[in-house]
Amino acid sequence: MRVYFDNAATTPLRSEVVEVISTNLKETFGNPSSTHGYGRKAKTSIESARKSIAKQFNAAASEIIFTSGGTESDNMIFYCAVNDLGVQRIITSKIEHHAVLHAAEKIAKKGISLEYVALDEEGSVDVNHLEILLSNNNQTTLVSLMHINNEIGNVLDLEAVGTLCKKYGAYFHSDAVQGVGHFHLDFSALPIDFLSASAHKFHGPKGIGFLYVSKALRLQSMIKGGGQERGLRAGTEAVHNIVGMATALELAYQNYDSEYQHILEIKKYFLDQIHAVFPEAICNGLSGDLARSTYTLVNISLPIDQEKATILDFYLDLNGIACSKGSACQSGSSLGSHVINALQRKDQYSDWPTLRFSFSCFNSKSEIDHLTTVLRQFATQEKPLANS
Amino acid sequence: MRVYFDNAATTPLRSEVVEVISTNLKETFGNPSSTHGYGRKAKTSIESARKSIAKQFNAAASEIIFTSGGTESDNMIFYCAVNDLGVQRIITSKIEHHAVLHAAEKIAKKGISLEYVALDEEGSVDVNHLEILLSNNNQTTLVSLMHINNEIGNVLDLEAVGTLCKKYGAYFHSDAVQGVGHFHLDFSALPIDFLSASAHKFHGPKGIGFLYVSKALRLQSMIKGGGQERGLRAGTEAVHNIVGMATALELAYQNYDSEYQHILEIKKYFLDQIHAVFPEAICNGLSGDLARSTYTLVNISLPIDQEKATILDFYLDLNGIACSKGSACQSGSSLGSHVINALQRKDQYSDWPTLRFSFSCFNSKSEIDHLTTVLRQFATQEKPLANS
Repeated sequence: MRVYFDNAATTPLRSEVVEVISTNLKETFGNPSSTHGYGRKAKTSIESARKSIAKQFNAAASEIIFTSGGTESDNMIFYCAVNDLGVQRIITSKIEHHAVLHAAEKIAKKGISLEYVALDEEGSVDVNHLEILLSNNNQTTLVSLMHINNEIGNVLDLEAVGTLCKKYGAYFHSDAVQGVGHFHLDFSALPIDFLSASAHKFHGPKGIGFLYVSKALRLQSMIKGGGQERGLRAGTEAVHNIVGMATALELAYQNYDSEYQHILEIKKYFLDQIHAVFPEAICNGLSGDLARSTYTLVNISLPIDQEKATILDFYLDLNGIACSKGSACQSGSSLGSHVINALQRKDQYSDWPTLRFSFSCFNSKSEIDHLTTVLRQFATQEKPLANS
Repeated sequence: MRVYFDNAATTPLRSEVVEVISTNLKETFGNPSSTHGYGRKAKTSIESARKSIAKQFNAAASEIIFTSGGTESDNMIFYCAVNDLGVQRIITSKIEHHAVLHAAEKIAKKGISLEYVALDEEGSVDVNHLEILLSNNNQTTLVSLMHINNEIGNVLDLEAVGTLCKKYGAYFHSDAVQGVGHFHLDFSALPIDFLSASAHKFHGPKGIGFLYVSKALRLQSMIKGGGQERGLRAGTEAVHNIVGMATALELAYQNYDSEYQHILEIKKYFLDQIHAVFPEAICNGLSGDLARSTYTLVNISLPIDQEKATILDFYLDLNGIACSKGSACQSGSSLGSHVINALQRKDQYSDWPTLRFSFSCFNSKSEIDHLTTVLRQFATQEKPLANS
């Protein structure tokens, strides 16, 4: 049995999305900037996709800018905030995705202030500290805080943080790569200026994402060249990827209620079953709290001794189970997760191996059963690899 | 009959490429950064693609960096040249693609010198002037000159220009978006540091390209985040697009000799037939010179009076013929082509309508016949649209 529990890293495409992409590649190859029939057909495809995406979030089509993905979207916002909006200070947190952290550090080298909001022990933003930071100087400020933490699943209250930002005249950006397609978001009601999304996190293709930019704000492009995306992002649009993203998003929200219930049941079942094997297992961040974390993931530390833990990943992989230690983007790193490290847990569990299991509509309870069987084997065998 | 003569704007995908992309989307959805089986399979796909691409150009796999396309590649080079290599001066020409011109102008605003090499009347680089520019100061310099001009088809002698750059210690970048897949290039023999390419110009997918970076040079990423592309380009790789690009390039070079001959015959036939209808027609740049321009395009001014010329595009489109006035990226612009304007032609033909016809292996002589029939009708009818 092969089980994919790494949906926060990337998701399998829906078959309808593959179909739409294949058809588009065959039939709509024109350059959207060309004025002839082939070009107009391609232009119509991307503008229909833009309208469809905007509609899911109660936004104007002109507020949706296509980019090559979440990382580019995040980078673009810092670039534009400084160059077009005169931002002099960035406030973020130490548990953002590296696309935010490293882009912010890059900007900081150019003389922009960079401050980090305090977090509580569970990785939630200390809103009082954010207010102190916002109130204690009058530099033009951009606050960038992610919607759903990709490692520990904490949900940020976009409404509350956005309202605070507005109160102090700060711009508010959220990396919502783990939220878009998984939560309902109303951009017309939320006090938010910018939001980043990535198609491959909601069963769409890789290499495409979008940036929501509130229409009240005038930006210029980070990547210069042709006048695509109304001058906001140069480069021939990846038409097939754009229509694939729109289709994936339509299906995510069409099937929302049933898929939400299904995935939530998987998460509950996972928590029950994993605690049956490891009663002492500890969920990190808020990921064990069904009310305050995303229904799509659990980050858990297991009571396994350090020596045995070194082969846990390998053992799971050998048994067909895909999960991760942290974000995929830092899988090769020996430093461990910057998110888990930032929580600064200094308790008896801090040496336990930490794993992230992230679920989608394509997972089933029988896959959880397979996982717990494999984990039980691992825990009870003295030399798991020799016996497996 | 529908005829697509705008292959310099974008090309129809080869059916094999669509097939490979569809299969990859279905079967290889993992995140290449993930260490489990799904991730390793995706990683293997992109590394095989990288090796395949490198091999076509006698380069090392580590010299090929995947980007979202030619525009990002061009932008990245200017960013990296200044930030990582200490470049203080950029030399380019006024007939580069906007991805180069606008990225260079952006950098110039940060205090980097920007100089333009002189061009002759046909749009070819004045190599003597380039040598004067290179020799008259000792700032660290990046020369960026395109391989094949996308509007007038002039071929740059990469060997000669690169040798001159080396002589004066300048870095050399070429936007080879119209050259890659259409000309044989040996990166190990050419004195070139950086080269940009885009898959959708050689029957591959949109939204993917690569940057060749000579291994002797150490750059850092423009787009920050995860450690993808050995730290040179953050963001989850578009695996399906990468394998599609590699397949398109393999097929381009596998079929090279026969397709080159076929397209060259099309171009010759076009020139013969168009001159049969319009004996006075004037080819712009070197595009009428079979020895010194690319075999893939002709840029031509037709002896049609200004009033009638205003409906020429529309008439061709109405008759199923796709061609362009300049690059697709500036199709919407009322300023006309910056390339044709830069040639500063002040002759009797300067008011004639200018069209670019660009060909691929999928075009046929009968399509040229259709074009010339339509153009003859247009030229002979007093009110073409009323009669068509």
